[in-house]
Amino acid sequence: MSALTPVMSAATINEYLNKVFPQLNNGHQDYEALEIFPGGCTVRLNACERHIRPGGTVSGPALFALADIGGYVCVLSHVGPDALSVTTNLNINFMRKAEPGPIDGKCRILKLGRSLMVYDIEIVAGPEQHIVAHATGTYSIPPKRNFDVVK
Amino acid sequence: MSALTPVMSAATINEYLNKVFPQLNNGHQDYEALEIFPGGCTVRLNACERHIRPGGTVSGPALFALADIGGYVCVLSHVGPDALSVTTNLNINFMRKAEPGPIDGKCRILKLGRSLMVYDIEIVAGPEQHIVAHATGTYSIPPKRNFDVVK
Amino acid sequence: MSALTPVMSAATINEYLNKVFPQLNNGHQDYEALEIFPGGCTVRLNACERHIRPGGTVSGPALFALADIGGYVCVLSHVGPDALSVTTNLNINFMRKAEPGPIDGKCRILKLGRSLMVYDIEIVAGPEQHIVAHATGTYSIPPKRNFDVVK
Amino acid sequence: MSALTPVMSAATINEYLNKVFPQLNNGHQDYEALEIFPGGCTVRLNACERHIRPGGTVSGPALFALADIGGYVCVLSHVGPDALSVTTNLNINFMRKAEPGPIDGKCRILKLGRSLMVYDIEIVAGPEQHIVAHATGTYSIPPKRNFDVVK
Repeated sequence: MSALTPVMSAATINEYLNKVFPQLNNGHQDYEALEIFPGGCTVRLNACERHIRPGGTVSGPALFALADIGGYVCVLSHVGPDALSVTTNLNINFMRKAEPGPIDGKCRILKLGRSLMVYDIEIVAGPEQHIVAHATGTYSIPPKRNFDVVK
Repeated sequence: MSALTPVMSAATINEYLNKVFPQLNNGHQDYEALEIFPGGCTVRLNACERHIRPGGTVSGPALFALADIGGYVCVLSHVGPDALSVTTNLNINFMRKAEPGPIDGKCRILKLGRSLMVYDIEIVAGPEQHIVAHATGTYSIPPKRNFDVVK
Repeated sequence: MSALTPVMSAATINEYLNKVFPQLNNGHQDYEALEIFPGGCTVRLNACERHIRPGGTVSGPALFALADIGGYVCVLSHVGPDALSVTTNLNINFMRKAEPGPIDGKCRILKLGRSLMVYDIEIVAGPEQHIVAHATGTYSIPPKRNFDVVK
Repeated sequence: MSALTPVMSAATINEYLNKVFPQLNNGHQDYEALEIFPGGCTVRLNACERHIRPGGTVSGPALFALADIGGYVCVLSHVGPDALSVTTNLNINFMRKAEPGPIDGKCRILKLGRSLMVYDIEIVAGPEQHIVAHATGTYSIPPKRNFDVVK
């Protein structure tokens, strides 16, 4: 994985996400890139009342969105700012309940090809940073990267 | 599947969802149960501006939420109103882009055991009702059903 | 799905599989294409002593192989005899135990693109044809189809 | 994961597998446990001519079987010799082609509950130990462990 080199920083990606994908945070700061490193990234969900489900724990869709955005940040940070990459497959296992608070997703690029990226993400939460969910996904990267298409 | 018998109607489930899971719709009518039938159900996402992603199509998390709620409605309608069933695994394939508008998820219970339910959902959209996504998931059903726990 | 048209028959595919993929059956007649139809196919595993696991039921890998070959037969039958298509993702749920005997996989092409095919397969067995497993998978189709490459 | 303690060694597990699951290796030494450690294990496929598919690379079902046996060895080594644990879900991504030779699966238990174990496995091969496949799976552990049931 050492061969992979990020081309965007976490701060630049957060700005970019706010511009091209305002629905993601909708004026809040729910989802954000924390760190980009060669071959991966860490993303965070600042989970609050809006993200809970019956039982008072963070909902599956909120955690799925973190897993999905983690892959998006992997593509953006390692391929460049092309907003049109899309998820083609995502498999997620929910293992423990997560309370509201910061929930971190540690993403790792398993393969970065010309047209597909495969990654996994370990989602941890709480004082002991237990694994609350784990996901594996694939993004399709558009063949012609028109970096100006979404502005 | 003919051995399965629903115990709640779509209308009752929609009321129940609004009560126990207000975060799902947050005052809107985004996600709803359309129909319950023996061995499955149909759920709908009324997709609008709030659900789109870069490119103007419905986002992955919005479709995942439909797939997830479809399983939840399968459990509620066939096991009874216990809000505490939780997703343990969900695998989703995104196949075509979906425009804003009604997006329907046709759910089928593949297995209903004492502690686990496995189902799949075919998500269709547009004038030709093309398959835009397909998911398979598992719900864990709590051993003791305390129907009063969430009120 | 009615737009899809098969280009090979079940008999031709079985011959082709024996030629290009002798390891699949290894002199037996374990795995075979039963029927090809527009948008899908039916494949069979003739499960016997060789396919069982502790408990006397058909093993996970034997059912996975049926799910995998079902996708392969979908690609071959609808795209043409290019042996080099490969599985990129497969998700399988095992729901009931299957006894030795004929086990049928009913495959449906969910999307056939230029470079990827997504399909699902329902695996049924026994006198009541219960669903014993269900899988969803993706095949990558090589960009240049050289039908003579494997002979 | 440090809280998990293995109760069987790799050698004992290989003996046990030969006794209760002779179909796995069928007189060969294809699949074996290499190492057991707290919270996981390493399993190996000694891939040869019997495991290849069109194109001369190791087949999907052969790699799936390694992923599946990796989870089985996780359960056996950390719960005890109950052969009747079964896979309920397995999701596998194939990322690179693997040549015949030793192929190692590094397994990690993500959650070990009373009735379910979730794990992932990274499958590496070749001189550079590239990731050729990655899988996530769930095993169902029988409620009453009758260690004498399969002898």
